[in-house]
Amino acid sequence: MTKTFSYHVSCFTFPFPIQTVRYKLTIAYRGANYYGWQKQMPVITWKGKMPPPGEGIPTIQEILSRKIASVIGHPITLVGSSRTDSGVNAKGQVAHFDTHHTHIPPEGMRRSINYRLPADILIRSIEAVPDSFDAISSTVCKRYQYFVWNAPDRNPLIPDICWHRWQPLDIEAMAAAAQVLVGEHDFTSFCKPGHHRVTTVRSVQECSVSKRGPKLVIGVAGSGFLWNMVRIMVGTLVEVGLGKHTPADIAVMLAARDRRVAGATAPPEGLFLQWIQFQ
Amino acid sequence: MTKTFSYHVSCFTFPFPIQTVRYKLTIAYRGANYYGWQKQMPVITWKGKMPPPGEGIPTIQEILSRKIASVIGHPITLVGSSRTDSGVNAKGQVAHFDTHHTHIPPEGMRRSINYRLPADILIRSIEAVPDSFDAISSTVCKRYQYFVWNAPDRNPLIPDICWHRWQPLDIEAMAAAAQVLVGEHDFTSFCKPGHHRVTTVRSVQECSVSKRGPKLVIGVAGSGFLWNMVRIMVGTLVEVGLGKHTPADIAVMLAARDRRVAGATAPPEGLFLQWIQFQ
Repeated sequence: MTKTFSYHVSCFTFPFPIQTVRYKLTIAYRGANYYGWQKQMPVITWKGKMPPPGEGIPTIQEILSRKIASVIGHPITLVGSSRTDSGVNAKGQVAHFDTHHTHIPPEGMRRSINYRLPADILIRSIEAVPDSFDAISSTVCKRYQYFVWNAPDRNPLIPDICWHRWQPLDIEAMAAAAQVLVGEHDFTSFCKPGHHRVTTVRSVQECSVSKRGPKLVIGVAGSGFLWNMVRIMVGTLVEVGLGKHTPADIAVMLAARDRRVAGATAPPEGLFLQWIQFQ
Repeated sequence: MTKTFSYHVSCFTFPFPIQTVRYKLTIAYRGANYYGWQKQMPVITWKGKMPPPGEGIPTIQEILSRKIASVIGHPITLVGSSRTDSGVNAKGQVAHFDTHHTHIPPEGMRRSINYRLPADILIRSIEAVPDSFDAISSTVCKRYQYFVWNAPDRNPLIPDICWHRWQPLDIEAMAAAAQVLVGEHDFTSFCKPGHHRVTTVRSVQECSVSKRGPKLVIGVAGSGFLWNMVRIMVGTLVEVGLGKHTPADIAVMLAARDRRVAGATAPPEGLFLQWIQFQ
Protein backbone atom coordinates (compact mmCIF):
# COMPACT_ATOMS: atom_id res chain seq x y z
CA MET A 1 0.00 0.00 0.00
CA THR A 2 1.16 3.56 -0.66
CA LYS A 3 0.80 5.83 2.33
CA THR A 4 1.85 9.40 2.85
CA PHE A 5 4.09 9.44 5.88
CA SER A 6 5.22 12.62 7.52
CA TYR A 7 8.89 12.48 8.40
CA HIS A 8 9.95 14.82 11.14
CA VAL A 9 13.62 15.63 10.88
CA SER A 10 14.62 18.18 13.46
CA CYS A 11 11.97 20.91 13.14
CA PHE A 12 11.12 20.20 9.44
CA THR A 13 8.44 17.87 8.11
CA PHE A 14 8.85 16.11 4.73
CA PRO A 15 5.66 14.48 3.52
CA PHE A 16 6.31 11.90 0.78
CA PRO A 17 4.60 8.69 -0.35
CA ILE A 18 6.06 5.44 0.97
CA GLN A 19 5.34 1.76 0.37
CA THR A 20 4.27 -0.21 3.49
CA VAL A 21 3.39 -3.84 4.07
CA ARG A 22 1.14 -5.32 6.75
CA TYR A 23 2.20 -8.53 8.50
CA LYS A 24 -0.11 -10.92 10.37
CA LEU A 25 1.51 -12.80 13.26
CA THR A 26 0.23 -15.97 14.94
CA ILE A 27 1.65 -16.17 18.46
CA ALA A 28 1.76 -18.80 21.22
CA TYR A 29 2.73 -18.04 24.82
CA ARG A 30 2.51 -19.15 28.44
CA GLY A 31 1.06 -16.27 30.45
CA ALA A 32 2.40 -17.20 33.90
CA ASN A 33 5.32 -14.73 33.83
CA TYR A 34 3.46 -11.81 32.19
CA TYR A 35 0.93 -9.16 33.14
CA GLY A 36 -1.33 -10.14 30.20
CA TRP A 37 -1.19 -9.03 26.56
CA GLN A 38 -1.72 -5.29 26.77
CA LYS A 39 1.20 -2.88 27.10
CA GLN A 40 0.92 -0.92 30.35
CA MET A 41 2.26 2.46 31.37
CA PRO A 42 5.02 2.04 33.93
CA VAL A 43 3.88 3.39 37.30
CA ILE A 44 6.16 4.25 40.19
CA THR A 45 4.55 1.60 42.40
CA TRP A 46 5.47 -1.32 40.10
CA LYS A 47 7.55 -3.63 42.36
CA GLY A 48 8.31 -0.52 44.40
CA LYS A 49 10.56 0.96 41.70
CA MET A 50 10.59 2.16 38.09
CA PRO A 51 11.14 -0.51 35.41
CA PRO A 52 14.64 -0.58 33.81
CA PRO A 53 15.14 2.07 31.06
CA GLY A 54 13.70 0.96 27.70
CA GLU A 55 11.60 -1.73 29.35
CA GLY A 56 8.07 -1.54 30.66
CA ILE A 57 5.98 -3.82 32.83
CA PRO A 58 6.48 -7.33 31.38
CA THR A 59 3.52 -7.90 29.05
CA ILE A 60 3.41 -9.98 25.86
CA GLN A 61 2.70 -6.96 23.61
CA GLU A 62 5.49 -4.92 25.20
CA ILE A 63 8.14 -7.64 24.76
CA LEU A 64 6.98 -8.58 21.23
CA SER A 65 6.93 -4.93 20.04
CA ARG A 66 10.42 -4.36 21.41
CA LYS A 67 11.89 -7.53 19.82
CA ILE A 68 10.17 -6.95 16.44
CA ALA A 69 11.42 -3.34 16.44
CA SER A 70 14.98 -4.53 17.16
CA VAL A 71 14.84 -6.88 14.15
CA ILE A 72 13.14 -4.64 11.55
CA GLY A 73 14.91 -1.49 12.66
CA HIS A 74 12.09 0.94 13.51
CA PRO A 75 9.41 1.19 16.23
CA ILE A 76 6.10 -0.49 15.39
CA THR A 77 2.51 -0.48 16.64
CA LEU A 78 1.44 -4.07 17.33
CA VAL A 79 -2.36 -4.54 17.23
CA GLY A 80 -3.50 -7.71 19.03
CA SER A 81 -6.76 -9.47 18.31
CA SER A 82 -7.49 -10.46 21.92
CA ARG A 83 -6.37 -8.65 25.07
CA THR A 84 -5.70 -11.74 27.18
CA ASP A 85 -5.63 -11.17 30.94
CA SER A 86 -2.65 -11.62 33.25
CA GLY A 87 -1.72 -15.33 33.41
CA VAL A 88 -3.85 -16.42 30.43
CA ASN A 89 -2.06 -18.57 27.81
CA ALA A 90 -2.38 -18.65 24.02
CA LYS A 91 -1.80 -21.18 21.28
CA GLY A 92 -3.04 -18.95 18.46
CA GLN A 93 -3.13 -15.25 19.38
CA VAL A 94 -3.11 -13.05 16.25
CA ALA A 95 -1.63 -9.56 15.83
CA HIS A 96 -0.68 -7.27 12.96
CA PHE A 97 1.82 -4.46 12.36
CA ASP A 98 2.87 -2.25 9.44
CA THR A 99 6.39 -1.68 8.22
CA HIS A 100 8.02 0.12 5.29
CA HIS A 101 10.79 -2.53 5.25
CA THR A 102 9.16 -4.54 2.47
CA HIS A 103 12.26 -6.53 1.53
CA ILE A 104 12.58 -8.76 4.65
CA PRO A 105 11.52 -12.38 3.93
CA PRO A 106 8.78 -13.27 6.50
CA GLU A 107 10.31 -16.63 7.52
CA GLY A 108 13.73 -15.07 8.13
CA MET A 109 12.11 -12.29 10.16
CA ARG A 110 10.12 -14.88 12.16
CA ARG A 111 13.22 -16.90 13.06
CA SER A 112 15.19 -13.80 13.90
CA ILE A 113 12.46 -12.51 16.28
CA ASN A 114 11.90 -15.96 17.84
CA TYR A 115 15.63 -16.19 18.56
CA ARG A 116 15.38 -12.96 20.59
CA LEU A 117 12.13 -13.82 22.41
CA PRO A 118 12.02 -15.50 25.84
CA ALA A 119 11.43 -19.29 25.96
CA ASP A 120 7.72 -18.90 26.80
CA ILE A 121 6.74 -16.73 23.79
CA LEU A 122 6.88 -17.98 20.18
CA ILE A 123 5.79 -16.52 16.84
CA ARG A 124 4.27 -19.50 15.00
CA SER A 125 3.87 -17.75 11.64
CA ILE A 126 4.31 -14.42 9.90
CA GLU A 127 2.56 -13.68 6.62
CA ALA A 128 2.01 -10.55 4.52
CA VAL A 129 -1.69 -9.65 4.37
CA PRO A 130 -3.70 -6.98 2.50
CA ASP A 131 -4.07 -3.65 4.32
CA SER A 132 -7.79 -4.37 4.70
CA PHE A 133 -6.86 -7.04 7.29
CA ASP A 134 -7.27 -5.87 10.86
CA ALA A 135 -6.53 -8.16 13.80
CA ILE A 136 -9.45 -6.69 15.78
CA SER A 137 -12.22 -5.86 13.28
CA SER A 138 -11.64 -8.76 10.81
CA THR A 139 -12.29 -11.38 13.50
CA VAL A 140 -15.11 -13.82 12.65
CA CYS A 141 -14.77 -16.52 15.32
CA LYS A 142 -12.54 -17.27 18.32
CA ARG A 143 -12.07 -20.51 20.23
CA TYR A 144 -10.88 -20.83 23.80
CA GLN A 145 -9.87 -23.99 25.67
CA TYR A 146 -9.85 -24.39 29.44
CA PHE A 147 -7.86 -27.19 31.08
CA VAL A 148 -8.91 -28.54 34.48
CA TRP A 149 -6.58 -31.08 36.16
CA ASN A 150 -9.22 -33.26 37.82
CA ALA A 151 -7.28 -35.74 39.99
CA PRO A 152 -6.80 -36.10 43.76
CA ASP A 153 -3.25 -34.69 43.51
CA ARG A 154 -2.19 -31.58 41.62
CA ASN A 155 0.37 -31.91 38.79
CA PRO A 156 3.66 -30.32 39.94
CA LEU A 157 5.14 -30.40 36.41
CA ILE A 158 2.56 -28.09 34.79
CA PRO A 159 1.15 -26.01 37.67
CA ASP A 160 0.86 -22.84 35.56
CA ILE A 161 -1.06 -24.20 32.55
CA CYS A 162 -4.04 -25.91 34.24
CA TRP A 163 -6.50 -25.42 37.12
CA HIS A 164 -6.44 -28.15 39.76
CA ARG A 165 -9.83 -29.33 41.05
CA TRP A 166 -9.52 -32.50 43.13
CA GLN A 167 -13.27 -33.08 43.68
CA PRO A 168 -15.02 -35.66 41.46
CA LEU A 169 -16.96 -33.78 38.76
CA ASP A 170 -20.18 -34.88 37.08
CA ILE A 171 -19.15 -34.59 33.41
CA GLU A 172 -22.63 -35.41 32.03
CA ALA A 173 -24.23 -32.58 34.04
CA MET A 174 -21.46 -30.19 32.93
CA ALA A 175 -21.96 -31.14 29.26
CA ALA A 176 -25.73 -30.61 29.58
CA ALA A 177 -25.19 -27.23 31.24
CA ALA A 178 -22.71 -26.25 28.52
CA GLN A 179 -25.40 -26.83 25.87
CA VAL A 180 -27.68 -24.27 27.61
CA LEU A 181 -24.98 -21.61 27.11
CA VAL A 182 -24.81 -22.23 23.34
CA GLY A 183 -26.69 -19.69 21.21
CA GLU A 184 -27.33 -15.94 21.29
CA HIS A 185 -27.92 -14.72 24.85
CA ASP A 186 -27.46 -11.66 27.01
CA PHE A 187 -24.34 -12.68 28.97
CA THR A 188 -24.52 -9.94 31.64
CA SER A 189 -24.48 -12.64 34.36
CA PHE A 190 -21.28 -14.07 32.85
CA CYS A 191 -19.38 -10.81 32.57
CA LYS A 192 -17.19 -8.88 35.00
CA PRO A 193 -18.90 -5.51 35.62
CA GLY A 194 -17.16 -2.36 34.40
CA HIS A 195 -16.65 -3.49 30.79
CA HIS A 196 -18.09 -0.31 29.12
CA ARG A 197 -19.64 -2.31 26.24
CA VAL A 198 -22.71 -1.08 24.38
CA THR A 199 -24.29 -4.54 24.27
CA THR A 200 -23.78 -7.66 26.37
CA VAL A 201 -25.51 -9.92 23.83
CA ARG A 202 -23.04 -12.45 22.45
CA SER A 203 -23.37 -15.56 20.32
CA VAL A 204 -21.70 -18.75 21.61
CA GLN A 205 -21.39 -21.24 18.74
CA GLU A 206 -19.92 -24.14 20.70
CA CYS A 207 -19.44 -25.11 24.34
CA SER A 208 -18.13 -28.63 24.88
CA VAL A 209 -16.87 -30.61 27.87
CA SER A 210 -14.62 -33.64 27.38
CA LYS A 211 -12.32 -35.69 29.57
CA ARG A 212 -8.93 -37.20 28.61
CA GLY A 213 -7.64 -39.10 31.62
CA PRO A 214 -7.29 -36.64 34.53
CA LYS A 215 -7.48 -33.69 32.09
CA LEU A 216 -10.89 -32.08 31.64
CA VAL A 217 -11.11 -29.83 28.56
CA ILE A 218 -13.82 -27.19 28.15
CA GLY A 219 -13.93 -25.71 24.63
CA VAL A 220 -15.81 -22.47 23.89
CA ALA A 221 -16.18 -20.88 20.44
CA GLY A 222 -17.99 -17.69 19.48
CA SER A 223 -17.75 -14.47 17.52
CA GLY A 224 -16.82 -12.40 20.54
CA PHE A 225 -16.59 -12.56 24.31
CA LEU A 226 -17.11 -10.19 27.22
CA TRP A 227 -14.63 -9.47 30.02
CA ASN A 228 -13.84 -12.71 31.94
CA MET A 229 -16.78 -14.37 30.15
CA VAL A 230 -15.06 -17.71 29.39
CA ARG A 231 -13.58 -17.92 32.89
CA ILE A 232 -16.99 -17.26 34.52
CA MET A 233 -18.60 -19.85 32.21
CA VAL A 234 -15.94 -22.40 33.24
CA GLY A 235 -16.27 -21.54 36.95
CA THR A 236 -20.05 -22.00 36.71
CA LEU A 237 -19.76 -25.28 34.77
CA VAL A 238 -17.35 -26.66 37.40
CA GLU A 239 -19.91 -25.70 40.10
CA VAL A 240 -22.51 -27.65 38.09
CA GLY A 241 -20.07 -30.58 38.07
CA LEU A 242 -19.78 -30.30 41.86
CA GLY A 243 -23.60 -30.43 42.17
CA LYS A 244 -24.02 -26.82 43.37
CA HIS A 245 -26.28 -26.03 40.39
CA THR A 246 -28.29 -28.10 37.92
CA PRO A 247 -28.06 -27.62 34.13
CA ALA A 248 -31.54 -26.00 34.28
CA ASP A 249 -30.15 -23.30 36.63
CA ILE A 250 -28.00 -21.95 33.78
CA ALA A 251 -31.06 -20.64 31.91
CA VAL A 252 -32.19 -18.91 35.12
CA MET A 253 -28.72 -17.34 35.51
CA LEU A 254 -28.78 -16.05 31.91
CA ALA A 255 -32.26 -14.57 32.42
CA ALA A 256 -31.28 -12.88 35.71
CA ARG A 257 -28.71 -10.60 33.96
CA ASP A 258 -26.86 -10.25 37.29
CA ARG A 259 -23.21 -11.23 37.78
CA ARG A 260 -23.92 -12.33 41.36
CA VAL A 261 -26.10 -15.31 40.38
CA ALA A 262 -23.44 -17.05 38.21
CA GLY A 263 -20.51 -19.06 39.57
CA ALA A 264 -17.02 -17.92 40.57
CA THR A 265 -14.45 -16.81 37.99
CA ALA A 266 -12.04 -19.66 37.16
CA PRO A 267 -8.33 -18.74 37.57
CA PRO A 268 -6.43 -17.54 34.46
CA GLU A 269 -3.77 -20.29 34.31
CA GLY A 270 -6.12 -22.91 32.77
CA LEU A 271 -7.30 -20.67 29.91
CA PHE A 272 -5.88 -20.93 26.38
CA LEU A 273 -6.77 -18.76 23.37
CA GLN A 274 -6.75 -21.63 20.86
CA TRP A 275 -7.40 -20.03 17.46
CA ILE A 276 -8.95 -17.00 15.75
CA GLN A 277 -10.74 -17.17 12.41
CA PHE A 278 -10.75 -14.17 10.05
CA GLN A 279 -12.87 -12.95 7.14
CA MET B 1 11.90 -49.15 66.62
CA THR B 2 13.20 -48.36 70.11
CA LYS B 3 16.15 -46.02 70.10
CA THR B 4 18.04 -44.44 72.99
CA PHE B 5 17.93 -40.72 72.40
CA SER B 6 19.92 -38.28 74.49
CA TYR B 7 17.84 -35.30 75.49
CA HIS B 8 19.82 -32.24 76.36
CA VAL B 9 17.88 -29.94 78.67
CA SER B 10 20.00 -26.98 79.74
CA CYS B 11 23.29 -28.56 80.85
CA PHE B 12 21.80 -31.96 81.80
CA THR B 13 21.44 -35.01 79.58
CA PHE B 14 18.59 -37.51 80.11
CA PRO B 15 19.07 -40.69 78.12
CA PHE B 16 15.85 -42.71 77.80
CA PRO B 17 14.41 -45.12 75.24
CA ILE B 18 12.02 -43.66 72.68
CA GLN B 19 9.85 -45.14 69.92
CA THR B 20 10.59 -43.86 66.39
CA VAL B 21 9.04 -44.57 63.02
CA ARG B 22 10.62 -44.29 59.55
CA TYR B 23 8.58 -42.84 56.67
CA LYS B 24 9.28 -43.33 52.97
CA LEU B 25 8.25 -40.43 50.70
CA THR B 26 7.70 -40.53 46.93
CA ILE B 27 8.13 -37.03 45.53
CA ALA B 28 7.50 -35.33 42.15
CA TYR B 29 8.86 -31.91 41.23
CA ARG B 30 9.78 -29.55 38.41
CA GLY B 31 13.41 -28.55 38.88
CA ALA B 32 13.38 -25.26 36.94
CA ASN B 33 13.10 -23.01 40.02
CA TYR B 34 15.50 -24.95 42.27
CA TYR B 35 19.23 -25.46 42.71
CA GLY B 36 18.83 -29.27 42.59
CA TRP B 37 17.95 -31.72 45.36
CA GLN B 38 20.79 -31.29 47.84
CA LYS B 39 20.62 -28.76 50.66
CA GLN B 40 23.43 -26.20 50.31
CA MET B 41 25.21 -24.05 52.84
CA PRO B 42 24.23 -20.41 52.36
CA VAL B 43 27.22 -18.41 51.16
CA ILE B 44 27.52 -14.67 51.35
CA THR B 45 27.71 -14.40 47.53
CA TRP B 46 24.28 -15.97 46.92
CA LYS B 47 22.38 -13.28 44.94
CA GLY B 48 24.78 -10.82 46.54
CA LYS B 49 23.20 -11.19 49.98
CA MET B 50 22.47 -13.70 52.73
CA PRO B 51 19.27 -15.78 52.35
CA PRO B 52 16.33 -14.76 54.60
CA PRO B 53 16.58 -16.10 58.18
CA GLY B 54 15.39 -19.71 58.42
CA GLU B 55 15.66 -20.17 54.67
CA GLY B 56 18.59 -21.41 52.66
CA ILE B 57 19.35 -21.53 48.94
CA PRO B 58 16.15 -22.86 47.30
CA THR B 59 16.71 -26.60 46.88
CA ILE B 60 14.11 -29.38 46.96
CA GLN B 61 15.58 -31.02 50.10
CA GLU B 62 15.78 -27.70 51.94
CA ILE B 63 12.13 -26.75 51.24
CA LEU B 64 10.80 -30.27 51.92
CA SER B 65 12.70 -30.60 55.23
CA ARG B 66 11.41 -27.23 56.39
CA LYS B 67 7.77 -27.95 55.49
CA ILE B 68 7.84 -31.48 56.98
CA ALA B 69 9.37 -30.09 60.19
CA SER B 70 6.65 -27.44 60.40
CA VAL B 71 3.97 -30.16 60.16
CA ILE B 72 5.42 -32.81 62.49
CA GLY B 73 6.81 -30.33 64.98
CA HIS B 74 10.52 -31.13 65.17
CA PRO B 75 13.53 -30.81 62.82
CA ILE B 76 14.19 -33.87 60.64
CA THR B 77 16.99 -35.27 58.50
CA LEU B 78 15.64 -36.03 55.03
CA VAL B 79 17.71 -38.66 53.16
CA GLY B 80 17.14 -38.57 49.39
CA SER B 81 17.78 -41.52 47.09
CA SER B 82 19.10 -39.48 44.18
CA ARG B 83 20.86 -36.11 44.32
CA THR B 84 19.31 -34.63 41.18
CA ASP B 85 21.20 -31.69 39.65
CA SER B 86 19.96 -28.12 39.34
CA GLY B 87 17.03 -27.99 36.89
CA VAL B 88 16.44 -31.78 36.75
CA ASN B 89 12.82 -32.90 37.27
CA ALA B 90 11.40 -35.95 39.09
CA LYS B 91 8.25 -38.01 38.89
CA GLY B 92 9.33 -40.53 41.52
CA GLN B 93 12.16 -39.30 43.75
CA VAL B 94 12.29 -41.27 47.04
CA ALA B 95 13.42 -40.04 50.47
CA HIS B 96 13.11 -41.18 54.08
CA PHE B 97 13.07 -39.56 57.52
CA ASP B 98 12.64 -40.67 61.16
CA THR B 99 10.24 -39.20 63.68
CA HIS B 100 9.14 -40.02 67.24
CA HIS B 101 5.65 -38.69 66.42
CA THR B 102 4.23 -42.13 65.70
CA HIS B 103 0.58 -41.14 65.99
CA ILE B 104 0.22 -38.96 62.82
CA PRO B 105 -1.75 -40.78 60.08
CA PRO B 106 0.49 -40.81 56.94
CA GLU B 107 -2.24 -39.62 54.53
CA GLY B 108 -3.15 -36.68 56.77
CA MET B 109 0.53 -35.76 57.10
CA ARG B 110 0.95 -35.99 53.29
CA ARG B 111 -1.96 -33.64 52.61
CA SER B 112 -0.85 -31.23 55.27
CA ILE B 113 2.70 -31.01 53.87
CA ASN B 114 1.45 -30.79 50.25
CA TYR B 115 -0.76 -27.87 51.23
CA ARG B 116 2.34 -26.00 52.47
CA LEU B 117 4.61 -26.92 49.53
CA PRO B 118 5.03 -24.71 46.43
CA ALA B 119 2.98 -25.62 43.32
CA ASP B 120 5.94 -27.34 41.62
CA ILE B 121 6.74 -29.85 44.41
CA LEU B 122 4.34 -32.66 45.43
CA ILE B 123 4.60 -35.62 47.83
CA ARG B 124 2.87 -38.44 45.94
CA SER B 125 2.86 -40.90 48.84
CA ILE B 126 4.02 -41.37 52.43
CA GLU B 127 4.26 -44.84 53.99
CA ALA B 128 5.73 -46.23 57.19
CA VAL B 129 8.63 -48.60 56.41
CA PRO B 130 10.87 -50.86 58.55
CA ASP B 131 14.02 -49.21 59.91
CA SER B 132 16.08 -51.44 57.63
CA PHE B 133 14.83 -49.38 54.68
CA ASP B 134 17.34 -46.82 53.49
CA ALA B 135 16.60 -44.51 50.54
CA ILE B 136 20.23 -44.70 49.41
CA SER B 137 21.49 -48.23 50.18
CA SER B 138 18.23 -50.15 49.57
CA THR B 139 18.08 -49.00 45.92
CA VAL B 140 17.94 -51.84 43.38
CA CYS B 141 17.07 -50.10 40.13
CA LYS B 142 16.40 -46.54 38.90
CA ARG B 143 14.79 -45.36 35.69
CA TYR B 144 15.31 -41.97 34.05
CA GLN B 145 13.37 -40.45 31.15
CA TYR B 146 14.68 -37.72 28.87
CA PHE B 147 12.27 -35.66 26.75
CA VAL B 148 13.47 -34.04 23.52
CA TRP B 149 11.05 -31.70 21.73
CA ASN B 150 12.00 -32.54 18.13
CA ALA B 151 10.05 -30.09 15.96
CA PRO B 152 11.06 -27.03 13.89
CA ASP B 153 9.62 -24.67 16.54
CA ARG B 154 10.17 -24.88 20.31
CA ASN B 155 7.15 -25.38 22.58
CA PRO B 156 6.55 -22.12 24.53
CA LEU B 157 4.10 -23.79 26.94
CA ILE B 158 6.59 -26.29 28.44
CA PRO B 159 10.03 -24.73 27.90
CA ASP B 160 11.39 -25.96 31.25
CA ILE B 161 10.49 -29.66 31.01
CA CYS B 162 11.98 -30.62 27.61
CA TRP B 163 15.05 -30.01 25.45
CA HIS B 164 14.34 -28.45 22.07
CA ARG B 165 16.28 -29.88 19.10
CA TRP B 166 14.88 -28.67 15.77
CA GLN B 167 17.12 -30.78 13.52
CA PRO B 168 15.64 -34.00 12.02
CA LEU B 169 16.99 -36.94 14.05
CA ASP B 170 17.62 -40.48 12.78
CA ILE B 171 15.62 -42.47 15.35
CA GLU B 172 16.74 -45.91 14.03
CA ALA B 173 20.43 -44.99 14.41
CA MET B 174 19.75 -43.62 17.92
CA ALA B 175 17.93 -46.82 18.94
CA ALA B 176 20.81 -48.96 17.60
CA ALA B 177 23.37 -46.82 19.46
CA ALA B 178 21.29 -47.06 22.66
CA GLN B 179 21.54 -50.87 22.49
CA VAL B 180 25.35 -50.65 22.54
CA LEU B 181 25.17 -48.82 25.90
CA VAL B 182 23.10 -51.63 27.50
CA GLY B 183 25.07 -53.99 29.74
CA GLU B 184 27.96 -53.73 32.19
CA HIS B 185 30.59 -51.26 30.97
CA ASP B 186 33.17 -48.85 32.30
CA PHE B 187 31.32 -45.55 31.80
CA THR B 188 34.34 -43.24 32.36
CA SER B 189 33.68 -41.64 28.94
CA PHE B 190 30.08 -40.92 29.99
CA CYS B 191 30.87 -39.34 33.35
CA LYS B 192 31.74 -35.81 34.41
CA PRO B 193 35.28 -35.91 35.90
CA GLY B 194 35.73 -35.18 39.60
CA HIS B 195 33.19 -37.70 40.85
CA HIS B 196 35.48 -39.35 43.49
CA ARG B 197 33.95 -42.81 42.88
CA VAL B 198 35.95 -46.00 43.48
CA THR B 199 34.65 -47.67 40.33
CA THR B 200 33.17 -46.28 37.13
CA VAL B 201 31.74 -49.66 36.08
CA ARG B 202 27.94 -49.50 35.96
CA SER B 203 25.26 -51.81 34.62
CA VAL B 204 22.65 -50.31 32.28
CA GLN B 205 19.65 -52.64 32.05
CA GLU B 206 17.64 -50.70 29.49
CA CYS B 207 18.21 -47.85 27.05
CA SER B 208 15.31 -47.19 24.71
CA VAL B 209 14.47 -44.46 22.17
CA SER B 210 10.85 -43.88 21.12
CA LYS B 211 8.96 -41.08 19.40
CA ARG B 212 5.44 -39.85 20.17
CA GLY B 213 4.62 -37.07 17.70
CA PRO B 214 7.19 -34.29 18.15
CA LYS B 215 8.23 -35.74 21.55
CA LEU B 216 11.26 -38.02 21.59
CA VAL B 217 11.60 -40.07 24.79
CA ILE B 218 14.87 -41.71 25.84
CA GLY B 219 14.43 -44.14 28.75
CA VAL B 220 17.42 -45.40 30.76
CA ALA B 221 17.25 -47.92 33.61
CA GLY B 222 20.08 -49.29 35.74
CA SER B 223 21.22 -50.07 39.26
CA GLY B 224 23.23 -46.88 39.58
CA PHE B 225 24.53 -43.97 37.56
CA LEU B 226 27.61 -41.76 37.56
CA TRP B 227 27.67 -37.96 37.67
CA ASN B 228 25.83 -36.52 34.58
CA MET B 229 25.89 -40.05 33.06
CA VAL B 230 22.31 -40.04 31.70
CA ARG B 231 22.68 -36.51 30.30
CA ILE B 232 25.96 -37.40 28.54
CA MET B 233 24.34 -40.60 27.17
CA VAL B 234 21.42 -38.52 25.82
CA GLY B 235 23.73 -35.85 24.38
CA THR B 236 25.75 -38.56 22.60
CA LEU B 237 22.62 -40.35 21.30
CA VAL B 238 21.30 -37.06 19.89
CA GLU B 239 24.66 -36.55 18.13
CA VAL B 240 24.22 -40.06 16.65
CA GLY B 241 20.73 -38.96 15.50
CA LEU B 242 22.33 -35.92 13.82
CA GLY B 243 24.80 -38.19 11.98
CA LYS B 244 27.92 -36.98 13.86
CA HIS B 245 28.64 -40.52 15.08
CA THR B 246 27.56 -44.01 13.99
CA PRO B 247 26.13 -46.59 16.44
CA ALA B 248 29.46 -48.48 16.13
CA ASP B 249 31.31 -45.42 17.48
CA ILE B 250 29.62 -45.89 20.87
CA ALA B 251 31.66 -49.06 21.56
CA VAL B 252 34.84 -47.12 20.69
CA MET B 253 33.80 -44.31 23.10
CA LEU B 254 33.19 -46.81 25.92
CA ALA B 255 36.57 -48.47 25.31
CA ALA B 256 38.42 -45.11 25.22
CA ARG B 257 37.52 -44.34 28.88
CA ASP B 258 37.96 -40.62 28.18
CA ARG B 259 35.20 -38.04 28.68
CA ARG B 260 36.43 -36.03 25.70
CA VAL B 261 35.46 -38.69 23.09
CA ALA B 262 31.74 -38.83 24.06
CA GLY B 263 29.15 -36.24 23.07
CA ALA B 264 28.09 -33.06 24.83
CA THR B 265 26.09 -33.12 28.08
CA ALA B 266 22.37 -32.64 27.41
CA PRO B 267 20.77 -29.78 29.42
CA PRO B 268 19.03 -30.66 32.73
CA GLU B 269 15.48 -29.48 31.89
CA GLY B 270 14.65 -32.56 29.77
CA LEU B 271 15.66 -35.09 32.45
CA PHE B 272 13.12 -36.83 34.70
CA LEU B 273 13.86 -39.29 37.54
CA GLN B 274 10.93 -41.61 36.73
CA TRP B 275 10.98 -44.27 39.44
CA ILE B 276 13.23 -46.07 41.94
CA GLN B 277 12.88 -49.73 42.83
CA PHE B 278 13.85 -51.00 46.30
CA GLN B 279 14.78 -54.34 47.85
